[in-house]
Amino acid sequence: MELDAKARYALISENLAEVLNPEIIEGILAEGRNPRVYWGTATTGRPHTGYYVAAIKIAQLLAAGCEVVVLLADIHGFLDNLKAPLELVESRAKYYQHIITAILESVGVPTAKLEFVLGSSYQKSPDYVMDVYRMASLTSEHDAKKAGAEIVKQSSNSPLSGLLYPILQVLDEEHLKVDAQLGGVDQRKLFVAATEWLPKLGYRKRAHLVNPMIAGLHGGKMSSSEEDSKIDLLDSPDLVTKKLRKAVAAPKIIAGNGILALVEFILLPAARLKGSKEFRVERPDGQEPLVYTDIKKLHEDYENEVLTPQLIKPAVTAALIDLMAPIQTAYQASKDWQEVTLKAYPPPEKKQKKVKDKGSRYPGAKPGADGKPAADGAAVELPERPAEQPAQ
Amino acid sequence: MELDAKARYALISENLAEVLNPEIIEGILAEGRNPRVYWGTATTGRPHTGYYVAAIKIAQLLAAGCEVVVLLADIHGFLDNLKAPLELVESRAKYYQHIITAILESVGVPTAKLEFVLGSSYQKSPDYVMDVYRMASLTSEHDAKKAGAEIVKQSSNSPLSGLLYPILQVLDEEHLKVDAQLGGVDQRKLFVAATEWLPKLGYRKRAHLVNPMIAGLHGGKMSSSEEDSKIDLLDSPDLVTKKLRKAVAAPKIIAGNGILALVEFILLPAARLKGSKEFRVERPDGQEPLVYTDIKKLHEDYENEVLTPQLIKPAVTAALIDLMAPIQTAYQASKDWQEVTLKAYPPPEKKQKKVKDKGSRYPGAKPGADGKPAADGAAVELPERPAEQPAQ
Repeated sequence: MELDAKARYALISENLAEVLNPEIIEGILAEGRNPRVYWGTATTGRPHTGYYVAAIKIAQLLAAGCEVVVLLADIHGFLDNLKAPLELVESRAKYYQHIITAILESVGVPTAKLEFVLGSSYQKSPDYVMDVYRMASLTSEHDAKKAGAEIVKQSSNSPLSGLLYPILQVLDEEHLKVDAQLGGVDQRKLFVAATEWLPKLGYRKRAHLVNPMIAGLHGGKMSSSEEDSKIDLLDSPDLVTKKLRKAVAAPKIIAGNGILALVEFILLPAARLKGSKEFRVERPDGQEPLVYTDIKKLHEDYENEVLTPQLIKPAVTAALIDLMAPIQTAYQASKDWQEVTLKAYPPPEKKQKKVKDKGSRYPGAKPGADGKPAADGAAVELPERPAEQPAQ
Repeated sequence: MELDAKARYALISENLAEVLNPEIIEGILAEGRNPRVYWGTATTGRPHTGYYVAAIKIAQLLAAGCEVVVLLADIHGFLDNLKAPLELVESRAKYYQHIITAILESVGVPTAKLEFVLGSSYQKSPDYVMDVYRMASLTSEHDAKKAGAEIVKQSSNSPLSGLLYPILQVLDEEHLKVDAQLGGVDQRKLFVAATEWLPKLGYRKRAHLVNPMIAGLHGGKMSSSEEDSKIDLLDSPDLVTKKLRKAVAAPKIIAGNGILALVEFILLPAARLKGSKEFRVERPDGQEPLVYTDIKKLHEDYENEVLTPQLIKPAVTAALIDLMAPIQTAYQASKDWQEVTLKAYPPPEKKQKKVKDKGSRYPGAKPGADGKPAADGAAVELPERPAEQPAQ
């Protein structure tokens, strides 16, 4: 199943909102080489089904013969939440690696060309740091703000690190030696900045693959504080069913419909990767099931109420539970992953006072800190730098 | 000549505009220990007599038994002037080391407890960098701006490095393991910030020795573009005489009088360190010379016109030439220093087009750059981070 350059590019760009500088990717494919792409995620919270959007794209990239680097941005994770000890962030990075691998395996994509890189493995190196200093001396505050406008909080009281992150993220493209970076449309300004900034240090401009923002389960953006608005990748079938039952899905309306977004950006692409290529909606009373291989027909049927919320919800629930089942199986089979999970997301303690201790538990600081996360474990925060807006 | 704690503190604090948290120094002296102090200078330009003010203070610190670290901030020097190749900055750092040592030897102070540290020797290390990231995530843009208000250019078009420098300078106190930092009053806001920021990372607060700003030869601030307003430490006696002849010295006026400032902050303290303890003004027509051991009497005489500009100028000229003579001698005796000088300040080339190449000549960039400074060699820039306003 060797794909030609055109088919490879089609798979690479499928479902993307935009590709910046596609000629960079096309040129590499024309030479028969394999583009190297990176996707970064701060290992702050706990991945939920929203990560499927990036994971599906990564799976497509791998299927198209790309080398893919997943940057586990542990330093960012640590800095975004200095209350948490670094060991927690390290365990979370391991958890991310487990679960991202499991997602990819759940859609049957070989992960031989997938590489995980910890930010801390190179973002503290002298070469990298010198580049940070150099870039900081060539980048104006104004430009750094513009680049980060949609990804970091910005006010004069915001931490300076928010202005530094865009510089790091741009330099990551060079230091990970990639040809392209994948991220959500919230990253677009930063991606444009990257094409302008790297040449100032004598580095080449990269292509950028821009994933669309997709609606959450309740319509609009997902909220990390609303527990029901996101589905954890290890949620039981019962819990998934319950959460999807509560999901908002207005009849006939496609825009902002989180249930339809799940089909378009996760279930249908996953089906195609797995070879079944279809999304199936059973109907009651002996009617023929509705079978979709592309989203256009499904949207038509939904607008015409051939496909109703009452019909699609159970179908999405069944398909999602089916898709997630291998993740649960992999989790049950891996003692290491189970141990990592306990360390990464320790169960909530009995109520105790929150200690506002900013970062003293970083290694090198005096021991004696309790090694427990300050938050209660349930209130998982979204990463400051999500690669895209999660689906749920 | 063992000094007691009180005499040591008197020497440490002599002529300073202010000491922040003096109790830190006093406590160390009370325990009979030797305070460790650092003074930093970006190795950008070429040290002139203005450096005597810091050098005299350093000499006093050494005489008071302090350990003194001179930070040669080569990374800052490189970043402030990305047009220049790093080799130039490295040579300048060596030049600075030669000349600072020579200044101290010119006042007869043993330099055994003097240590030179290159910024690049630790400011790229993983521990340091992690601290930069941590501090950046705990420091607001507002606070970074306030700290650097008087030492870096600030506008939304200013480079981001200007907001990063205060963080580096504060962390230097911890990473150089000092008890105090020495700098000019333009550093005061940064020094106050340092006392607030370091404890946030669990590090101890340091004391700060604040040198006064002293008037230039033309009154007011020294201008690096006015060649006559500063005296290079290797200027010939003839040139020194010529420049001082042009210096502004209004009769009877003490405030902003650069000639009097030379006596107060350089010549008198240097005389005390050398043991002669006096500043001598010869008078014509067989009158007794005027001999001063403290500045108060000299100021009185100047206000009363017992001491006129016509009398003091030749005296200052003679004393400065005398003070600088050992520097010239040391320079003539050191082949290494002479070679370093040629590399650090290459003679102006025949006119050639300035290439606006920002930083590609940093090591790691492709070779082929000409290795020449883009500026004409004569237009030496002031360091972005002068430890204090130079005297000339």
